[in-house]
Amino acid sequence: MNALRLFTRNGRQFLPNVRPMSAKAGPLVDLSVDNEGIATLTMQRLPVNSLNLELIQEIDKGLDEVANNKARGVILTSASSSVFSAGLDIMEMYKPDRKRVEQFWTSLQGLWLKLFGSKFITAAAINGHAPAGGCLLAMSCEYRVMVNGKFTTGLNETALGIVAPRWFMDTMCNTISKRDAEIALTTAKMFTVDEAIKVGLIDETATDKADSIEKCKQFINRFNRIPPLARAFTKQKIRGDALAWLQKNRQADLEEFLTFVTSPKVQQSLEVYLELLKQKSAKK
Amino acid sequence: MNALRLFTRNGRQFLPNVRPMSAKAGPLVDLSVDNEGIATLTMQRLPVNSLNLELIQEIDKGLDEVANNKARGVILTSASSSVFSAGLDIMEMYKPDRKRVEQFWTSLQGLWLKLFGSKFITAAAINGHAPAGGCLLAMSCEYRVMVNGKFTTGLNETALGIVAPRWFMDTMCNTISKRDAEIALTTAKMFTVDEAIKVGLIDETATDKADSIEKCKQFINRFNRIPPLARAFTKQKIRGDALAWLQKNRQADLEEFLTFVTSPKVQQSLEVYLELLKQKSAKK
Amino acid sequence: MNALRLFTRNGRQFLPNVRPMSAKAGPLVDLSVDNEGIATLTMQRLPVNSLNLELIQEIDKGLDEVANNKARGVILTSASSSVFSAGLDIMEMYKPDRKRVEQFWTSLQGLWLKLFGSKFITAAAINGHAPAGGCLLAMSCEYRVMVNGKFTTGLNETALGIVAPRWFMDTMCNTISKRDAEIALTTAKMFTVDEAIKVGLIDETATDKADSIEKCKQFINRFNRIPPLARAFTKQKIRGDALAWLQKNRQADLEEFLTFVTSPKVQQSLEVYLELLKQKSAKK
Repeated sequence: MNALRLFTRNGRQFLPNVRPMSAKAGPLVDLSVDNEGIATLTMQRLPVNSLNLELIQEIDKGLDEVANNKARGVILTSASSSVFSAGLDIMEMYKPDRKRVEQFWTSLQGLWLKLFGSKFITAAAINGHAPAGGCLLAMSCEYRVMVNGKFTTGLNETALGIVAPRWFMDTMCNTISKRDAEIALTTAKMFTVDEAIKVGLIDETATDKADSIEKCKQFINRFNRIPPLARAFTKQKIRGDALAWLQKNRQADLEEFLTFVTSPKVQQSLEVYLELLKQKSAKK
Repeated sequence: MNALRLFTRNGRQFLPNVRPMSAKAGPLVDLSVDNEGIATLTMQRLPVNSLNLELIQEIDKGLDEVANNKARGVILTSASSSVFSAGLDIMEMYKPDRKRVEQFWTSLQGLWLKLFGSKFITAAAINGHAPAGGCLLAMSCEYRVMVNGKFTTGLNETALGIVAPRWFMDTMCNTISKRDAEIALTTAKMFTVDEAIKVGLIDETATDKADSIEKCKQFINRFNRIPPLARAFTKQKIRGDALAWLQKNRQADLEEFLTFVTSPKVQQSLEVYLELLKQKSAKK
Repeated sequence: MNALRLFTRNGRQFLPNVRPMSAKAGPLVDLSVDNEGIATLTMQRLPVNSLNLELIQEIDKGLDEVANNKARGVILTSASSSVFSAGLDIMEMYKPDRKRVEQFWTSLQGLWLKLFGSKFITAAAINGHAPAGGCLLAMSCEYRVMVNGKFTTGLNETALGIVAPRWFMDTMCNTISKRDAEIALTTAKMFTVDEAIKVGLIDETATDKADSIEKCKQFINRFNRIPPLARAFTKQKIRGDALAWLQKNRQADLEEFLTFVTSPKVQQSLEVYLELLKQKSAKK
């Protein structure tokens, strides 16, 4: 029963229950599925898809729905025309409420475990800037297509006085070489599209959002003749050490984050940063 | 006594006992040694060198003989003109006898530990297709020369519904980048010669088998002035984590394989595959 | 108090106490600091900066001074015009006094932990040959600029019958790929400048020593707008596994070295090597 048929005539898994999944999604995420069983999860917390608790939770629920609907894969993208995701929402970290900030970090850990270790296929159509947490989401997928333009991506946490946690680093080292990761992380390097493709931080470029989604679909279709279960376990096994580390160290990782985020120095640097954002915003 | 002389006039270790080693080899493997102390181990279980228990055991014995004869190195190649090795013999896994399939897997583990961790120098002259277990054997060597042509190589286990064990993955990550390995393993990628050299899955190409063997010898001769013991320990140390993992987890790895191979789903997909092979064979 | 200001007008940390640090340095090392807070540590144990106990201790003290003076970074270079450092001094290992050789190895371990894990920025201006321990020092930095010419660098321990310890290997794998490291370590590969830049063993080339130092400064200045503490912790975290290994295994690593260095075979090969050096020297 519920047999995952390993071989079918056209090499594809039959999808009996495809329906508009967006019905279940909250306001911050749109979720749809095409007639080939490929889901698209669009972040729409405008203007910049800052990852606050609610957006993280909605993406997480969206991934559950992708799994429950037995979609073959999901494409992560943005409703903004210039930003994929700006990363973690500073407001979750500035003068935080203890209980909420704990929930915030725990939810982020959970989302990463689900996305990085998902059985279904994952691809990112990066249609805008993707710094910090935005880059993390993209790197957690199995494939990355980035729209040509002035967009940049990278783990630039140090520029804000923040140390990327170990699982951010592991995610980057799953994508690019250790050497490139060290230089990128310490210098807070934001890669242009050309630089990103050169080091392997992205896999392909696209002319626009539609093209990036099309190329993500082509990637997902590479698996049409691969038995899904063997594919899923193979992915989880090669990503296993990184996944196991966070599963084993969630509490310690949370405490490190809390100690860090509540320190006067970090609060001070967040205040400076927010002041800069306010000035920038006022000039417009 | 028995001193391994670290320095000799011509930088080579004296080999007092070189003799036709093939005398000791069984019918599935030919083993010879040239006058420079370089052994050639030729798999000759035609047509495609499927790795059944007996072939695995003969290769294993061949490696023992290489070690006992103090040959400087060994070149692994095939008697077939189109297949290096087709990988594990499906017949060992289809409706298996419990005791034999246990011995089969345990022997494969043992062969890998011996080949991947050998003190003597190893090189593969890949003179034909080398999927799955065939690719594993080649990657376990220290150098790979592949004959130009329509041949392909890769760990394509997922295409058959099989998950490569961790030590297969570790072997691939010892050769190519983590990122390339993940994509290759999940998509069951078979690399053409050009693709293989680009990612580093092979080191050199050759025009034919003789050329591939000559280039393997040139590789082995790079070590003429390197004290063999320091070389051997250095190899074992840099490969140490992967070797230690299997040494520590042989039983668990065996049980994972047995659970997997005896599952109805895998048996069903093997049956489908054997049926396809039969039809293909009937058409000829 | 003692606040490390994360943001300053020009993005640089204020350096109140910059003074000629060389005053404190011993005769084997020159230490100076420029008006931008960048220190230069010049090894001057001529002719070839062989790393004996005293040179190791002086470099170690020099690094302490760099840290105590809150210099932003340090550039490691050589007073010789042809050799960066020839590596470990053979005389420390040939017919060694037990107590001194223990101190020698322990000091080397300590120096590596300090340099590889330093909070301040490190760069190597490789203005000459850098074999073995010389290459280790350079690889332990965060950036490498090598002067064009006939110079070579690499971990060529096996050529002398020596097995590089695990932390040497970890340091190399932090810089170049596992595959390149295995081939380089087993074959005792000395990389030309062109080869070194191709595999990533060095980051840039320079026309002469002044140019190499200038390029190291440019690297250090890349961090002008990065909060130093976040930078430091990020570096220590991504290098953490290698650092933790030696911290946890210092005694075992020392014992392995002692067993090895006092073995008749290694003593014999050191004797042969010293004899060769003497003959070479006599010919001049």
